[in-house]
Amino acid sequence: MNYPTNLFTFQRVSDRMKRIGRGSIIYTFSPKHKPAEVASPGEYVLFETEDAFGGQVKGEETPPDKLDWSRVDGATGPLYIEGADLGDTLVVDILDIRLQEKGAIAVIPGYGGLSHLSFAPKAKVVRIDGSFVYFNDIRIPIKPMIGTIGVAPKEGEIPAGNPGKHGGNMDVSELGVGRRLYLPVFTKGALLALGDLHAVQADGELCVSAIESPGEVLVRVNLIKGRMPNWPILETSESFQVITAGKDLDEAVREAAEESIRAIMRAKGIPFEDAYMLGSLLVELKINQVVDPLLGARARVPKWLVSIHDFLH
Amino acid sequence: MNYPTNLFTFQRVSDRMKRIGRGSIIYTFSPKHKPAEVASPGEYVLFETEDAFGGQVKGEETPPDKLDWSRVDGATGPLYIEGADLGDTLVVDILDIRLQEKGAIAVIPGYGGLSHLSFAPKAKVVRIDGSFVYFNDIRIPIKPMIGTIGVAPKEGEIPAGNPGKHGGNMDVSELGVGRRLYLPVFTKGALLALGDLHAVQADGELCVSAIESPGEVLVRVNLIKGRMPNWPILETSESFQVITAGKDLDEAVREAAEESIRAIMRAKGIPFEDAYMLGSLLVELKINQVVDPLLGARARVPKWLVSIHDFLH
Repeated sequence: MNYPTNLFTFQRVSDRMKRIGRGSIIYTFSPKHKPAEVASPGEYVLFETEDAFGGQVKGEETPPDKLDWSRVDGATGPLYIEGADLGDTLVVDILDIRLQEKGAIAVIPGYGGLSHLSFAPKAKVVRIDGSFVYFNDIRIPIKPMIGTIGVAPKEGEIPAGNPGKHGGNMDVSELGVGRRLYLPVFTKGALLALGDLHAVQADGELCVSAIESPGEVLVRVNLIKGRMPNWPILETSESFQVITAGKDLDEAVREAAEESIRAIMRAKGIPFEDAYMLGSLLVELKINQVVDPLLGARARVPKWLVSIHDFLH
Repeated sequence: MNYPTNLFTFQRVSDRMKRIGRGSIIYTFSPKHKPAEVASPGEYVLFETEDAFGGQVKGEETPPDKLDWSRVDGATGPLYIEGADLGDTLVVDILDIRLQEKGAIAVIPGYGGLSHLSFAPKAKVVRIDGSFVYFNDIRIPIKPMIGTIGVAPKEGEIPAGNPGKHGGNMDVSELGVGRRLYLPVFTKGALLALGDLHAVQADGELCVSAIESPGEVLVRVNLIKGRMPNWPILETSESFQVITAGKDLDEAVREAAEESIRAIMRAKGIPFEDAYMLGSLLVELKINQVVDPLLGARARVPKWLVSIHDFLH
């Protein structure tokens, strides 16, 4: 049923990884949730995930405007990380993502980046293989990614469909295999959960969903003690990216930009004015999604300019 | 004084290109301006451009909050294109960009993406060579681009510092050598003008200016008769990109996304709902700048999915 994207990694650690099954699903990020599993820093954990529709979209005959919304946008977990305390940074290495061979996408009137237009509800189920998604007669290269990944807030609960400082439904197209994510820890054990895998999604996630597929995600967790970022930070081979959310794109962009400029000031020991200029030349502002309850942006700073410690407080 | 980015191109056409000097500068796009030069479709034209500060930033001692704003954001031109009429498309091939060896950047309180913060006015003049900008002790790879390029509106006048359907101050980081720009023609002769060259600018142009340098731009102009795009379209080797502007990023993104989805509908002969889904998978939403009078976005559609004709009406 599954195709492997990185069989070597799965096999190498399969005898020593912990596993959280698809049955352990939460619909909010909250300190109230009982841990599904416990891991120590350095340990490997496999999360089995449900798709964002909760498996409800079975084919073109499924009316996507009649979904049971209480089963939408779930995340698998939470994972309690030993030794994680308020003020620490949780470091998550995304080692592998395996998707099932079927994915679903839907448009729902009133939703998405073009929700002001009139259109009909429609769902589509597509085949996925190790290289492509097959949409009508169009082959689209896959780029598996994690839509939702986050920790519990300090108190209360945040719907798993929302993005925020805790992470959550960030829908960042670059959050795939080989990437590292730094999350602020707000509560004992951090309480990591993830889900909402996408076989492919463009920056924007325009229609409100992407190719949604159940799957498995292998991660390794670690901690940086005593310091944390203001917002989640994505590390790629060439950049650090501040991932933010706001009531509109302008607010999300402002937050990401300011955090990046502060990091450049620290990295180079320069005043705000110089860092602001450098930001104009080197900080790429990008759009994550324009469709969640809060809109998402990210600011990409090249790694040769800053280190992760410049983002931690 | 100049360094060549593509000496071959300049030499090859130097005996048959027209030239518009730095003296022909306009501060608005308008049908009222007398043409500085006339060209036929297929002709090569070299535009000599002033920097966006009008050459007023001479060094760190220049107070950027005391600029003469009537000399800021000029464009060289306009060029009258024979045979261009309302409803046509002006096709501009960017063949070469040559920058001078000095550039300037400034931050001005109240301006830029972080204008809500308190900071001091500051200017910086930097050296530019064929590969890098030298900012403090930091070498930044150059990526020469055109900040302002546009045509006259049907009537009235639009300040050359603004972006819009006519083009203008779009500040698109990818608008460099080897790229093609499609502009709607609103008035007889189109009246093309360009300026505001940047040695390097990240998506966002966060601090309100980039590395601003005088220079020369070699273009070839052509026409598509009887059809035009709703917004400027940038063609790269792999994509068509709809370039829009709005009172905020959300509005700019919505315009760019809708235009892209319409093009996909035409290209594939599919209903809105399917094109909307494909947009979620394949249309990358990007930020141009968050600092001009209107904010700018673009939507990138891969070339294998659409042709330029799908964007023309």
